[in-house]
Amino acid sequence: METTKKTIIVFSGDLDKVLAAFVIANGAAAMGDDVTMFFTFWGLNTLRRPEKVKAKKSFLQAMFGGMMPRGVDKLGLSKMNFGGMGAKMMKIVMRQQNIASLPDLIQTAREQGIKMIACTMSMDVMGIREEELMDGLEYAGVATYLGEADEANVNLFI
Amino acid sequence: METTKKTIIVFSGDLDKVLAAFVIANGAAAMGDDVTMFFTFWGLNTLRRPEKVKAKKSFLQAMFGGMMPRGVDKLGLSKMNFGGMGAKMMKIVMRQQNIASLPDLIQTAREQGIKMIACTMSMDVMGIREEELMDGLEYAGVATYLGEADEANVNLFI
Amino acid sequence: METTKKTIIVFSGDLDKVLAAFVIANGAAAMGDDVTMFFTFWGLNTLRRPEKVKAKKSFLQAMFGGMMPRGVDKLGLSKMNFGGMGAKMMKIVMRQQNIASLPDLIQTAREQGIKMIACTMSMDVMGIREEELMDGLEYAGVATYLGEADEANVNLFI
Repeated sequence: METTKKTIIVFSGDLDKVLAAFVIANGAAAMGDDVTMFFTFWGLNTLRRPEKVKAKKSFLQAMFGGMMPRGVDKLGLSKMNFGGMGAKMMKIVMRQQNIASLPDLIQTAREQGIKMIACTMSMDVMGIREEELMDGLEYAGVATYLGEADEANVNLFI
Repeated sequence: METTKKTIIVFSGDLDKVLAAFVIANGAAAMGDDVTMFFTFWGLNTLRRPEKVKAKKSFLQAMFGGMMPRGVDKLGLSKMNFGGMGAKMMKIVMRQQNIASLPDLIQTAREQGIKMIACTMSMDVMGIREEELMDGLEYAGVATYLGEADEANVNLFI
Repeated sequence: METTKKTIIVFSGDLDKVLAAFVIANGAAAMGDDVTMFFTFWGLNTLRRPEKVKAKKSFLQAMFGGMMPRGVDKLGLSKMNFGGMGAKMMKIVMRQQNIASLPDLIQTAREQGIKMIACTMSMDVMGIREEELMDGLEYAGVATYLGEADEANVNLFI
């Protein structure tokens, strides 16, 4: 069987959508595929370190960044979030059902060698700096994404 | 002309997005393609029976399930829903314009042999049981989706 | 290198998502690809002329249309829009960072010969008439989209 490639653009920063992205990515990697995840806009929040990091920003960027969730534990649901209650409920149900949590899925993605790229243009728009993001990422723009997508047989925008 | 395959992940449970998914799916099937729709997370609400069904659930699952829409007639819009008024308005306009309703589109999808798969992992997360969903579905996980997607030339996430 | 084709369904009318769509589309066109953008549902608002245009509509269509944003300058963010403040902030940050604005991106798309198709069925559903949309568009339905997607190697739903 030949290796095939998959790409996923993670635009959303909603817990449920990011979960779906990592479940698909890990599933594909487990079946031997090369997988590239490209994080843009709100999706970048998934990659943020939970602690506050000092970074040089304009006033508006700092304001925007301060209001956005820092890291996987802060993500909300796209529906029925109820100020975070919905996300909390979903995480409890997942634990009860022995379903891997998002931090576990991200850990698995790293172990499986899934390429995680942070979109540099989105970082400028959202005012997010490299030092605020987790280790082990690549940094690139749309041309890199398109190059990967051209080699892939499944390309999703989530 | 060779038959090609299309897959659509229906993640959203918004009336407008589910409509778009079924219009594309039915269009492709009408042109002779194999089509697989994979329902995950909120998309599962599209497949729920309208009546309340007794099912064994944990407290949180029951609570979550009780708040989610049961079936196509209860889906809202992704924008401008106004507590259901937007969805109602859209349905009236569609009737005036002789555009097929969502229940009609689902019926057509079945008649055209479109494969409708309910994602079992999402069912666990959302606390939705088989007995709550319509007849004629298949039940599977991400590996089945990826197998179908590998054979398809168009794969969408909606 | 052979020319490849890309299609993007622009379902969303959120500024951030429409920005992502045009960045990808322009990037692909700059690399020599044929690109087709297919605007459906809320995505049609991107193409609306900013001025009010007289058009024959049913009462509900007029009501719906009147509440929807007219053109790129009125689009909001999918998150943290705060009644338009979020969109305004994002536009200021983009200008500070010398990132092309949405109107610039649309202009570039036209200059690069990107095919922009307005979905006629969605126009009926949303009550949007040809005379309300910008010049230089094509008008077609799902069969045209599917024909284009069959020839493309990357197909996204945004």
